[in-house]
Amino acid sequence: MYNKILVVNPNSNTENTRWIDEAIQPLRSQDGPEIECRTLADGPIAIENEIQGAQVVPSLCRLIEQESEYTGAFVVACYSDPGVLAARDVTDKPVIGICEAGLSTALNFGDRVGVLHNGVEDIIPAMRGARALGLDSRVVGGRSIDVPMARMDEQGLVLEQMTKAAHQLEDELHASVLVFGCAAMTPFRRSLEKECGLPVIDPAQAAVGMAITAVRCFSQN
Amino acid sequence: MYNKILVVNPNSNTENTRWIDEAIQPLRSQDGPEIECRTLADGPIAIENEIQGAQVVPSLCRLIEQESEYTGAFVVACYSDPGVLAARDVTDKPVIGICEAGLSTALNFGDRVGVLHNGVEDIIPAMRGARALGLDSRVVGGRSIDVPMARMDEQGLVLEQMTKAAHQLEDELHASVLVFGCAAMTPFRRSLEKECGLPVIDPAQAAVGMAITAVRCFSQN
Amino acid sequence: MYNKILVVNPNSNTENTRWIDEAIQPLRSQDGPEIECRTLADGPIAIENEIQGAQVVPSLCRLIEQESEYTGAFVVACYSDPGVLAARDVTDKPVIGICEAGLSTALNFGDRVGVLHNGVEDIIPAMRGARALGLDSRVVGGRSIDVPMARMDEQGLVLEQMTKAAHQLEDELHASVLVFGCAAMTPFRRSLEKECGLPVIDPAQAAVGMAITAVRCFSQN
Amino acid sequence: MYNKILVVNPNSNTENTRWIDEAIQPLRSQDGPEIECRTLADGPIAIENEIQGAQVVPSLCRLIEQESEYTGAFVVACYSDPGVLAARDVTDKPVIGICEAGLSTALNFGDRVGVLHNGVEDIIPAMRGARALGLDSRVVGGRSIDVPMARMDEQGLVLEQMTKAAHQLEDELHASVLVFGCAAMTPFRRSLEKECGLPVIDPAQAAVGMAITAVRCFSQN
Amino acid sequence: MYNKILVVNPNSNTENTRWIDEAIQPLRSQDGPEIECRTLADGPIAIENEIQGAQVVPSLCRLIEQESEYTGAFVVACYSDPGVLAARDVTDKPVIGICEAGLSTALNFGDRVGVLHNGVEDIIPAMRGARALGLDSRVVGGRSIDVPMARMDEQGLVLEQMTKAAHQLEDELHASVLVFGCAAMTPFRRSLEKECGLPVIDPAQAAVGMAITAVRCFSQN
Amino acid sequence: MYNKILVVNPNSNTENTRWIDEAIQPLRSQDGPEIECRTLADGPIAIENEIQGAQVVPSLCRLIEQESEYTGAFVVACYSDPGVLAARDVTDKPVIGICEAGLSTALNFGDRVGVLHNGVEDIIPAMRGARALGLDSRVVGGRSIDVPMARMDEQGLVLEQMTKAAHQLEDELHASVLVFGCAAMTPFRRSLEKECGLPVIDPAQAAVGMAITAVRCFSQN
Repeated sequence: MYNKILVVNPNSNTENTRWIDEAIQPLRSQDGPEIECRTLADGPIAIENEIQGAQVVPSLCRLIEQESEYTGAFVVACYSDPGVLAARDVTDKPVIGICEAGLSTALNFGDRVGVLHNGVEDIIPAMRGARALGLDSRVVGGRSIDVPMARMDEQGLVLEQMTKAAHQLEDELHASVLVFGCAAMTPFRRSLEKECGLPVIDPAQAAVGMAITAVRCFSQN
Repeated sequence: MYNKILVVNPNSNTENTRWIDEAIQPLRSQDGPEIECRTLADGPIAIENEIQGAQVVPSLCRLIEQESEYTGAFVVACYSDPGVLAARDVTDKPVIGICEAGLSTALNFGDRVGVLHNGVEDIIPAMRGARALGLDSRVVGGRSIDVPMARMDEQGLVLEQMTKAAHQLEDELHASVLVFGCAAMTPFRRSLEKECGLPVIDPAQAAVGMAITAVRCFSQN
Repeated sequence: MYNKILVVNPNSNTENTRWIDEAIQPLRSQDGPEIECRTLADGPIAIENEIQGAQVVPSLCRLIEQESEYTGAFVVACYSDPGVLAARDVTDKPVIGICEAGLSTALNFGDRVGVLHNGVEDIIPAMRGARALGLDSRVVGGRSIDVPMARMDEQGLVLEQMTKAAHQLEDELHASVLVFGCAAMTPFRRSLEKECGLPVIDPAQAAVGMAITAVRCFSQN
Repeated sequence: MYNKILVVNPNSNTENTRWIDEAIQPLRSQDGPEIECRTLADGPIAIENEIQGAQVVPSLCRLIEQESEYTGAFVVACYSDPGVLAARDVTDKPVIGICEAGLSTALNFGDRVGVLHNGVEDIIPAMRGARALGLDSRVVGGRSIDVPMARMDEQGLVLEQMTKAAHQLEDELHASVLVFGCAAMTPFRRSLEKECGLPVIDPAQAAVGMAITAVRCFSQN
Repeated sequence: MYNKILVVNPNSNTENTRWIDEAIQPLRSQDGPEIECRTLADGPIAIENEIQGAQVVPSLCRLIEQESEYTGAFVVACYSDPGVLAARDVTDKPVIGICEAGLSTALNFGDRVGVLHNGVEDIIPAMRGARALGLDSRVVGGRSIDVPMARMDEQGLVLEQMTKAAHQLEDELHASVLVFGCAAMTPFRRSLEKECGLPVIDPAQAAVGMAITAVRCFSQN
Repeated sequence: MYNKILVVNPNSNTENTRWIDEAIQPLRSQDGPEIECRTLADGPIAIENEIQGAQVVPSLCRLIEQESEYTGAFVVACYSDPGVLAARDVTDKPVIGICEAGLSTALNFGDRVGVLHNGVEDIIPAMRGARALGLDSRVVGGRSIDVPMARMDEQGLVLEQMTKAAHQLEDELHASVLVFGCAAMTPFRRSLEKECGLPVIDPAQAAVGMAITAVRCFSQN
C-alpha cells in the first residue's frame, strides 16, 4: 500500500497543471503511489520573478502542512523551487523542487548541463539558483528560447527556437545534457531530443520520479 | 510496453547481487519495466580498489554492448562507479552509476551529504569521486563504520557502528542527509534512519529509481 | 539633501528593533541621511526558520514598495536576509540584507570569516546561505553560543559563551574575523573583540554603512 | 570625536589623488571622521604592473606605520590593492583595499559582477585577484574600455567606450552590476549608470564608505 | 646510481612511442636516470575514448607491477591519464600521468591554462578531467585544432591550425599558457610558441621532468 | 649547452642558502644546466610576514632583471613566493616560486595535500596562498610543527614534532601527500617519509626540477 504523491503547481494557471499532469503520466503505475497534480488556488497566474515566488510560500506551506499526514512525498512544480526550503519546516515528508531534481538528475545523463529558458531575464536567477544548490561547476549556463508564454502553443515556432537555443548551449558552452527551465516546455521533450541529439530532462518528470522512489523505498525498507 | 532495466553487479559475488535485488524490490511494479540484477561473471570477488575497478571495465562494457538493444537503461551497482563513463561509449542507452545517482539524489533530501564507508581507506577515493562529479561543495565527507565485509551479517554490530559514524557525520561535519557508500549496507537503511533521525539514501535504490524514470519517460514523451 | 534610509526589522519584536536602532546610532550624522528603524507590524515575533522567513515576504515587499519613492536605500535587518531578492523586484532603490552585507564587509577585515549563531540548528542554513552568496570559500563555518533568545539579557553568560564559541572558530576553523549571526548580539561587539582579539563585525552596522555610502554617492555623482 | 581616515594614493600622480578626493567628497560629513587623501610621494607615476605594485609597498607601509596612532582606518586607493596585506602587519587599524572593497560591496547590488578595465592586459591580473579573494564565483569577468590613461580626459570618447564595454559585460557574461577597475573612471559613474541601466560601483567610494563605518562603529560600540 | 624511468605509451602505435622518445630526449643526461619509452604491446592502436582508455588498464598495471622492482618512477604517456590511479595500487613507486603533470606544471608558467585538442569531441572529457583534478579554476578550457591524426604529418597545416586555436584560447578565454592535449603535437612546441607568444607546455616533457626530480631526490635525501 | 638556473634565497641568511643548495644537489648533473644558489644580499634575515615578503621585491626584481640575459630560469626559494609575479614583469625567462611548484608537484603524488609549517601563524597565509593559486580544493590544510627557527638544528625534536604534525594532517584532514612549508625542513624529508609513510615533497627540489625541465626542453625543442 503506497502513499500518495502530491504535485503542487504553485501558480493558479490550471492549464499549467494539466501540462504537468500529462508530463508525469508515464510515471504512474497500477500498483504505484497515486500521483495527484493540484493547482495552488490562490497562487498568482504565473511565477515570473522573486516576488511572485515569495507570495506563494505561505499558502503552499499551509497546503503541504494540511496534506502531510496523507501524503508520502511532495513535489513543488515551478522551476524557481519556491517554498521548497520553507515547506520542509512544516512536514517531515520529502519535499522535492523540480529545479533541484531536474539539475541533479541531469548530472547522470551528461557532464555539462545547459538550461533552456523562456526569456533572457531568467538566466541570471537560474545561475544564482545553481550556485545556491552547489551545482554551478556542472551547470554551464542557460539560453533563452525567446518565446513568450502566450505563444507557447505555436509548436513550429517553439521547436525551432528551442533547437536554436540547444545548439547555442552545445556550441558555445559545450553542454552535453539539457534541462527544461519551465514546466510548459514538456510537450517538446521528445522532438527536441531528436533535433539536437542531446538528452533532454524534463524537471517535473525528474522530480516525480524521485518522489516515487522515495515513497516506494522509504515505506518498505 | 516498457524496456528492461539491467542492473549489473560488477563483482562476482552473487550474494551482493542478491542484496541489491532485495534492495530494489520495492521499485518493481506490475506494469513497469522489468528489472534484472545480474552478476558480472568474470568480475573480481570484490571491488575494493582502483585496480579491481579497472579490471571489470572491459567485460562490463562487453555485457552492456551486447544487451543494449534489449535494454532501456543500465545501472552499474558498485559505489566506485567503475566503467560508467566507458560504458557510455558503447551504448546510447542511459548508464547510471550508483555513486553519482546516490549523491545527486541525496541533494534533494538534505543540504549537506555525508557518506558511510566500510573502511577508513575508502574516504579519500570517495572525496576524489565527489570532486570529479563536481559535488564536493555539498558532499561534506565520509566516516568509516570499520566493519569488514566478512562481518556485515552481524546486525547488532553493524547498526551500532553505523549509528556511531552517522553521529560523527552529523556532529563533526554537519551532515543533514546520509548516503550508503556500499551496496552491502542496504538492509540497515530503515533502522539507521530511526536511530539517527536523518534521511538515509541507498544508492542502488536511487540509481534504479532514476533508470525507471528514464525508461518510462524517454520511451513515451 | 540626502534621502532617507529605511531599516526594516521583519519580525514584530519591537525590542529587536530598538537593539538595531542603538547598534546603528554611531552611523547617524547631522548632515547625513535620516535613518529610520521600523518594525514590520505583521511579522512573526521571531524569524527562526525558513517558513517564518517566507511569511514576512509579502508584507515586507508591500512596505518597501510603498516607501520606495521617499527612500534612498532599504536594509532588511534579519540575518537570514528574508525577502531581499523579492524586494528588489518592487523597487529600483538598493535593498541590502544584513547577512550578505555583514559577510562581504567582513572579508575586508580578515581572510577567514567565522559566524556566531544562537543555536546549533542555525549552522547548516547559514552555510547554505554563504554558498548561495558565493562566499563559501572564505566563510569557514559557524559555532553556536547556545544561549536561547530569552536569556540574551544575561550579559555575563552571553559574553562567556560568545568568547568560547569565538575561540572554537579561531582554533578549529582558523577564523580571523567574526560576524554576528543575529541582531541581538550587537551589544557585545566591543567586549567580545577585547576578549578574543579578532575583529567582530555587526551585520546591521555593515549593512547600514553600505546603505549610507550608496545614498550619499548615488545621489551626487 | 571620530578618528581620521587616511586614503593613500600609492602612485605619485597628484591628479589621481585629486580625482579620488572628489570621488569621496559626498562621503564627508560635518560630524564624521576627517578624510585625508594623500599622494605617496615616492611612488611611481602609475601602477600598471606587478613590479610597480611591489615597489610601493615599503614606503606605503612606512607611511601607514607612522600614521597609525592618529588614524582610525586606512584606504589603499589603487585597484591592484598593493601592500594591503603587508600593511596589516604594521598597524592594528583596518587597512582596506579598493579592489576588495569594491568587489565585496558590488555583491550587494547585483548577482554577477563585471569589471571595467583600462586595457585588455588588466583582465588576467584582475581575474587572478578575484580568485585570490575567493570571489571568482560572482565576479564573472572584465572588459577593457581601450582608452589609454593619457586620453581619459576626452569625456565623449571615454563614455562611449565604457558603454560599449558595459554592454559586452551584460550581454556576453550576464553581468548585473559593474565595478570600475581604475580610480580615474570615477567621474563617469553617474553617466554610465544612466547609459547602461546597471548599478556602477566606484571602488574608492566603496572602500571609504567601509572605513567610515568601521571608524564610527569600532570607536563607539 | 639512479633508478630507471619507464615511460609507457599505452597504445600500440610505435610511431607515437618514437615521438614521445624524441620529445623527452633533451631531459636525458649522462649521469641521470635511464629513461625508456615502451609501447604497451596489447594496447589499442589509439586511445580516443573512455572505453579504449579502460581497455589498457589491466595490461598497463601488469607491466607496471612487473617492472616495479627495477624502476624508479613510471610515466603514463596518454593525455587521458588511463590507469594512473589503478597503477598506484600495484606499485609504491611514483606513477605520473602526463595530463596531470602537464596541467600542474603549466600553472607555474601562466595564470590561465588553455588546452589544444585534436578534435572538438575531446573538449568535454578534458574539462571533466581538469575538474576531477581540482584544477578547473585555472584550466579555462580547450580548443580543437581539427586535424585528424592521419594528417598530423602535414606540418604547415598543423601549425596553422594550432596557431588559430591558440589565438582563440587567448582571445576568447584569456589563456596565458598552453598545454598540448595530445602526445603527437610535441614537434610543434617551439614553432607554436614563436607564433603565439605564449609558453607552450608539452605534457610528456612535464611528466618525465617530474619523474626525474622524484627519482633523483627520493633516492638520495 | 644549457643555460644556468639561478635559485635566489630572498632572505639574507646564508645558512638558509646552504640548506637549499644541499637540498637541490641531487638535481645537478654533469651535462645539465649549472644551478647557482644565491643569497639576496639586502634581504631581511628571515621572511616571516607579508611586510618582509614585500620588502625584498624591488631588489629581487633588480637581481633577476640583471641576470636575465645569462639565465635560463629563476627559482625564488621562499615558501611565500615573494615577488614571483613581479619578477615575471622584468624577465621573459621562467620564474618559479617554490610554493606553487611544491604544491603543484605534490598533486602528482597524492590526492590531498597537507602542509607542514613552522608556526601556527603560518596556516592562514598559506591557505590564502593556496586559494590564490586555485589549488584549495586539493590543498586540505596545514599543521604547525611548533619549532622555532632557532631550534631547527635539534634533529630529534624536529623529527618528533614533524611526525606528530604529519599524523594530524593524515588523521584529521585525510592528507595523502605532504609538502614542507619552509626551506629549513629539507634535511628531514627522507626520515619523515619513513616515519609517516606518506610521500613528502620538498618545494625547493620541486621548483628546481621544473626549472631544469624548462631549461632543457625550451632550449632545444
